[in-house]
Amino acid sequence: MHSIGKVAILTVLGQPVPDDVFQVVTGQVGSMSVEKVVAAVETAAKREGLIAADHYRGEHALYHAVLEALHGVCRGQLELGSILRTAGLKFAVVAGPRDADRPEEGHWLAVALYGYIGAPRRGFEHEVIGLGINHL
Amino acid sequence: MHSIGKVAILTVLGQPVPDDVFQVVTGQVGSMSVEKVVAAVETAAKREGLIAADHYRGEHALYHAVLEALHGVCRGQLELGSILRTAGLKFAVVAGPRDADRPEEGHWLAVALYGYIGAPRRGFEHEVIGLGINHL
Amino acid sequence: MHSIGKVAILTVLGQPVPDDVFQVVTGQVGSMSVEKVVAAVETAAKREGLIAADHYRGEHALYHAVLEALHGVCRGQLELGSILRTAGLKFAVVAGPRDADRPEEGHWLAVALYGYIGAPRRGFEHEVIGLGINHL
Amino acid sequence: MHSIGKVAILTVLGQPVPDDVFQVVTGQVGSMSVEKVVAAVETAAKREGLIAADHYRGEHALYHAVLEALHGVCRGQLELGSILRTAGLKFAVVAGPRDADRPEEGHWLAVALYGYIGAPRRGFEHEVIGLGINHL
Amino acid sequence: MHSIGKVAILTVLGQPVPDDVFQVVTGQVGSMSVEKVVAAVETAAKREGLIAADHYRGEHALYHAVLEALHGVCRGQLELGSILRTAGLKFAVVAGPRDADRPEEGHWLAVALYGYIGAPRRGFEHEVIGLGINHL
Amino acid sequence: MHSIGKVAILTVLGQPVPDDVFQVVTGQVGSMSVEKVVAAVETAAKREGLIAADHYRGEHALYHAVLEALHGVCRGQLELGSILRTAGLKFAVVAGPRDADRPEEGHWLAVALYGYIGAPRRGFEHEVIGLGINHL
Ligand SMILES: [Mg+2]
Ligand SMILES: [Mg+2]
Ligand SMILES: [Mg+2]
Ligand SMILES: [Mg+2]
Ligand SMILES: [Mg+2]
Ligand SMILES: [Mg+2]
Repeated sequence: MHSIGKVAILTVLGQPVPDDVFQVVTGQVGSMSVEKVVAAVETAAKREGLIAADHYRGEHALYHAVLEALHGVCRGQLELGSILRTAGLKFAVVAGPRDADRPEEGHWLAVALYGYIGAPRRGFEHEVIGLGINHL
Repeated sequence: MHSIGKVAILTVLGQPVPDDVFQVVTGQVGSMSVEKVVAAVETAAKREGLIAADHYRGEHALYHAVLEALHGVCRGQLELGSILRTAGLKFAVVAGPRDADRPEEGHWLAVALYGYIGAPRRGFEHEVIGLGINHL
Repeated sequence: MHSIGKVAILTVLGQPVPDDVFQVVTGQVGSMSVEKVVAAVETAAKREGLIAADHYRGEHALYHAVLEALHGVCRGQLELGSILRTAGLKFAVVAGPRDADRPEEGHWLAVALYGYIGAPRRGFEHEVIGLGINHL
Repeated sequence: MHSIGKVAILTVLGQPVPDDVFQVVTGQVGSMSVEKVVAAVETAAKREGLIAADHYRGEHALYHAVLEALHGVCRGQLELGSILRTAGLKFAVVAGPRDADRPEEGHWLAVALYGYIGAPRRGFEHEVIGLGINHL
Repeated sequence: MHSIGKVAILTVLGQPVPDDVFQVVTGQVGSMSVEKVVAAVETAAKREGLIAADHYRGEHALYHAVLEALHGVCRGQLELGSILRTAGLKFAVVAGPRDADRPEEGHWLAVALYGYIGAPRRGFEHEVIGLGINHL
Repeated sequence: MHSIGKVAILTVLGQPVPDDVFQVVTGQVGSMSVEKVVAAVETAAKREGLIAADHYRGEHALYHAVLEALHGVCRGQLELGSILRTAGLKFAVVAGPRDADRPEEGHWLAVALYGYIGAPRRGFEHEVIGLGINHL
């Protein structure tokens, strides 16, 4: 009934998600540095065991999923402070089947980012969302 | 309590959104042509009166919001069929204040797109989301 | 007779522009940091009252106009020093109707950037121009 | 006193440019196809002898100059009709020294594009400019 | 001693590659349509069994690898005919370990593209290469 | 028999290339800064006389060739450390005819980059290649 992307989005929005077959990690990061967003997501996912810490394979999958999610957040250029904007983001990383009822497609990862982007001044910002999905 | 982007995202996901100060239009479009996605969203928004049909100003605001939402969907290149992929999308267009409790910032537009992207073959696809926000 | 973009371009090139319905601000900025170009334009436009300093709305309009102008300057990547190049730019920000004879389309902003881009070495550079236009 | 880029921009805007050391070709093209813009510029430049018709070298220089100019026009994606927009453009191609007083840097090309971009509906558009410069 | 990317590049260049642990498929495709390049590579890889034909997972891995290789070929915009250029390409798809001596990182895919890009006129072209690598 | 791009690629891969009409320079650079890659290539090419050190023309040709090669390496965003990745690259710069048997097309430059890109952690990386070609 649930798909991995929807679970990631609802979770990052703080909506209830039924107990399910997915592993979920959440966190938040505010930064003018894109690399800090990437690092925050990777650190959380490794700490909670969604990807193995000692192999490149899972990190490669997660890295590309995070970059894809950042395309939705940045909408054209993967840049924050270097073009004078800052982001305050919540993130959710989800591991599991692509769809709860399609286990035959193996293990996948979804990264959802949601929050605000704008000038480095309180309230001068609007919402953004991004989702990246990759096979694990 | 509600912000325009969250209203757009929850609506496009089919989640309940409390009655509110926002005007909302929804629809869906499946296509290998990016321009058909843009056209479907614009047509719906004009038909329901979210933007004026006889002035460029509102269309300009909506056009850029749709393109920004498409960045989240396409993650790098605003292309579908031309790079051999197709998308089946639901959309929600929302007009109103940027945040329900910040009327002093005037009128804004949010466009949320959610659905599946993939090869032109049933089931060979994964989820995508995009959100574009613009002042009206 | 005049359109907002042409007024911005002629002004940034130092050409005479007939007294008109437009508000115009000019300045210059040399930098290897894209964010300094954005900041210089925003600071000048606020100081001269082309956009309100205490609301996000006008800053949002100007920010996207500056980024669009930077696309013409950077031609592919909104980066300067990070890809080993520097820019010396004049800028003009213009507020007013989109065309002098189309007041019914409301208030718009145009940002023109003109100058030189190149290696961080005197004379190793060529000209660039960029124009961004947004509804205010 | 004159630089190749400024000559191209003033020419495309219909401003007077003093008789000079530069070779200049102008034309116009309206299209939803980026390739038609490229073709119109190349055809005019070859017909007037700004680049040789029987060697690739000059065409390579011009092609990249046109693409760079199109970045200013398109601001993010080199696409027109495929993202539901159309452009009506004037163009100027200029060949000569990079600056009138720097002949030691050899022969260069400048391509300026100026006009309107927008929805495929009269008046639903705003101005754009682009400039590409390349060594010949 | 061999890495998957080097095997793909040497193969696409027609260089000898020692018998090895890798599965290799080659082909060629000339087109003004990016989607035909993608399709040619996918068809060959499926026909030779480098990815399963009945699951999305392998196609997803290959699709992203092809797009990454196309970035090297297209250098900025994943477009061919739409910006008035054509490509004549050879391709090699390789499946196996990331490095012949690192089997613990699992199965990977490499796609190499090599050939000529240029105007739709014989000889008006120059060489291009691209490589995309993904975990399978 | 040889083309400038193939000579650059084979050289950067450490393959034997027959004595020929081309001038070749090689080197290596590891960095999280794109500008250091550009600088390393430019410095080597000037030191060995492939481009003149006292004119902009050759540097302009080389600069754009390096950026084009970096598109193959970066596959979407010309960024390294700013998106939390690092690259260890070998480079080859080649000057000469576009093809050994087409001297009538004049002098060209090719820049090939080959190496590994990945997380800033040993072994967490995969191969990349890039090639940029420009008329000199
Ligand atoms: Mg990768
Ligand atoms: Mg616009
Ligand atoms: Mg915005
Ligand atoms: Mg080229
Ligand atoms: Mg995908
Ligand atoms: Mg240049």
